[in-house]
Order: sequence, then C-alpha cells, then structure tokens
Amino acid sequence: MGRPPVPLLSTELIASAAMDLVNTTGGFTIPELARRLKVSPSSLYNHVSGREQIVELLRELAMSEVVLPPDDPDRPWTETVSEIMRSYRRSYARYPRLIPLLTTHAVNSSQAFTMYNALARTLKRAGFGDGNILRVITLMDCFVLGSALDLAAPVEPWESGTEVGPELAAALATGGPKPARADDAFEFGLAVLLRGLADLATS
Amino acid sequence: MGRPPVPLLSTELIASAAMDLVNTTGGFTIPELARRLKVSPSSLYNHVSGREQIVELLRELAMSEVVLPPDDPDRPWTETVSEIMRSYRRSYARYPRLIPLLTTHAVNSSQAFTMYNALARTLKRAGFGDGNILRVITLMDCFVLGSALDLAAPVEPWESGTEVGPELAAALATGGPKPARADDAFEFGLAVLLRGLADLATS
Repeated sequence: MGRPPVPLLSTELIASAAMDLVNTTGGFTIPELARRLKVSPSSLYNHVSGREQIVELLRELAMSEVVLPPDDPDRPWTETVSEIMRSYRRSYARYPRLIPLLTTHAVNSSQAFTMYNALARTLKRAGFGDGNILRVITLMDCFVLGSALDLAAPVEPWESGTEVGPELAAALATGGPKPARADDAFEFGLAVLLRGLADLATS
Repeated sequence: MGRPPVPLLSTELIASAAMDLVNTTGGFTIPELARRLKVSPSSLYNHVSGREQIVELLRELAMSEVVLPPDDPDRPWTETVSEIMRSYRRSYARYPRLIPLLTTHAVNSSQAFTMYNALARTLKRAGFGDGNILRVITLMDCFVLGSALDLAAPVEPWESGTEVGPELAAALATGGPKPARADDAFEFGLAVLLRGLADLATS
C-alpha cells in the first residue's frame, strides 16, 4: 500500500528484448533497449553490467539448444564431433542476425566454454596436437556459423537469370527444397571436413 | 540562377550510406536511409527500385575486391578454387555485419554470378557431378563467410578464465596474434576441405 509498483525488470527480460531488436534491426543499443522496455538506461544497469554482458546473455540464448553428447572415450571422435556440430548449427540457425554480433565479441559464457571444452577434449583424445586443436575448432566454428546462415537463407538462394552460366544452371537444377537442401549440403560438408581431418588424428 | 540546388543523390551515395548504417547498427531501413541522406524516402525511389536493389548494391560493394584468376584449363582446379576463396574471404571480411543481411537475400548481382559461374566451371572441369558442384559451392560459401567473420573477431576470441579446461587452454596457448592466426586457420581449413574433396574429382 502506497509502495509504487516495481517494474519487473530482469536479465531474462533484458536479453529477450535485446534479441527482438537484433532480429528486427540487426543490432541493439542501450538507449533503444531502455526505450523498448519502458525504463531508463540507468535501471538497466541495476541488472546488467553493460553491453558486453547483454551480448553474453544473447550468446547463451543462441546456444540454449546445444546438446552435448556424453563424454564417451570409446566412441569414435568423428561421431562425437558430428553430434556437437549438428546441434550447434541448429541452435544458432534460429538467430542468423545475431551471428556477427557474437563473433565480434570475445566468448565469455559458461555454455560456450562447456562446448569448446568438450570439443578440445575429444580432439585431444583423437590424437590432434594442441596447435591443430585450435585450428580444427576455428574451422568448425567457421563452417557451423556459415551453415547456420545458409539454413536461414531464402529458398531460392540464387535468382535464375541470363547471367547464370550452363555449369551453374545445371548445378542449381539439382537442388531440392529447403531446409532439406541446406541439411544435405551441411552433411556433405561435415563428411568432407572429417575426411580431410582423418590423417591428422591417430585414433 | 534561381534554380534550387539539386541534391546530388546517386545509387553510389545511397549504397555508401546504407553500408555506413549496416556497419554501425547492423541493418538499414528506407526511412533511416532517407534521414541520413537528408532526402525524402520518395526521392530514394527515383534512384533505386527498393530495399532489394540496395541489398544487391551492398553485395557488389562486398564483392568489389574479389579478383578472379584467368580461366586456365591447364591449371590444377585446387589452385583456381583456392585463389577464388582467398580473394572472396578478404573482400567480405571488410564488412562482417553485412554478411547475414546478404545471406538472407537471394543473390541477384552480376559480380556474384561471375564468381559462382567461375567456380561451377572449374568444378565441372575437375570432374564433379552437378549435384556435388552445388554442394561444394555451398560448402565454400559457408566456410568463406564463417572465416570472414572470424577474421573480424577480436584478438582474444575466448576470454581466459577458470572455465577453460586444460585441453582448451593448451590449444589456446598456441594461437599467434591476429590477423596471422585467422589467416593460418583459414589456410588450414582450406587444405582440409580440398583434401576431403579430392576423391570426388577426377582430374
């Protein structure tokens, strides 16, 4: 009684509003976020330390559907890695416009570290050297994020026209509907990567 | 004399203002663009047919530094493809925030078709089937765009902390400075891809 209603601001609400802004405009600023939540910018700082923390909250949302397989030393490393990459791609493909925002900020969230730790452990056990583990993780990141963008691409990724040469036209004619075509290309790429990496593993 | 000064609006100026907006905010809208150019939205439509055409102008800017090698049937396909991919990555890495905007719109610009035609012709000559040509081009797109984002990533892509496990820490410790580390990872990934694709080519 007599106490003013307290706005139900929370880190979840802030992250969700920031995600809406990124999905519609490609980015977010603290003033935009405050306007959308109908609070003052300073109220936001009662819940988050600043822009960097909000980016990490968005990274956690992007990774929220990443499911890591059990850490099984008896399973072939290629299977463990494939399962992580499939799950990573699906989870990120929900938020394509978020991807460049995340890649331009240093990773600093528990969910991300849990996944990268699992990849590093699996690759180490497979016999990759430390330098190659960093390279392989970077390659997987590049391929998965590019594939997440491809999954969000339009059904007809190239408009057919007079500028399409005969070789490209014949290739495009083989493409099935989305998302099956993107899934097919991702599985093809994953198999190519693992084949290309085979000589660098010892198990 | 007496004639009011005509704003020097051109498709180049519109594309350049849209690129500035994408670089700073992650996207652009026609009203924002008009405000930034100090013209009315309808003036924009005297120069461009709409948002789609502006996106294609941005794609042409992103591709403006792609240099295609001469179409030489005697050169190994892996060399031609590598040269195209290196140039494609460098050109796109200048505008990381543009990447998801481009991938969510169908390709409809001459520069893009010229590059995809060159890739399809080279792969066809190397003996890839039509279906695999589409898959390989998609794989290259995913890898190059992901690598362009990686090149624009911060010097320390992962913040070191207690959550970094021993295998990941050992891998991170091998990383050199940027952009050398990103270049090294890209060349590693390119070699892995080409090795993984070798069995699918006949020449």
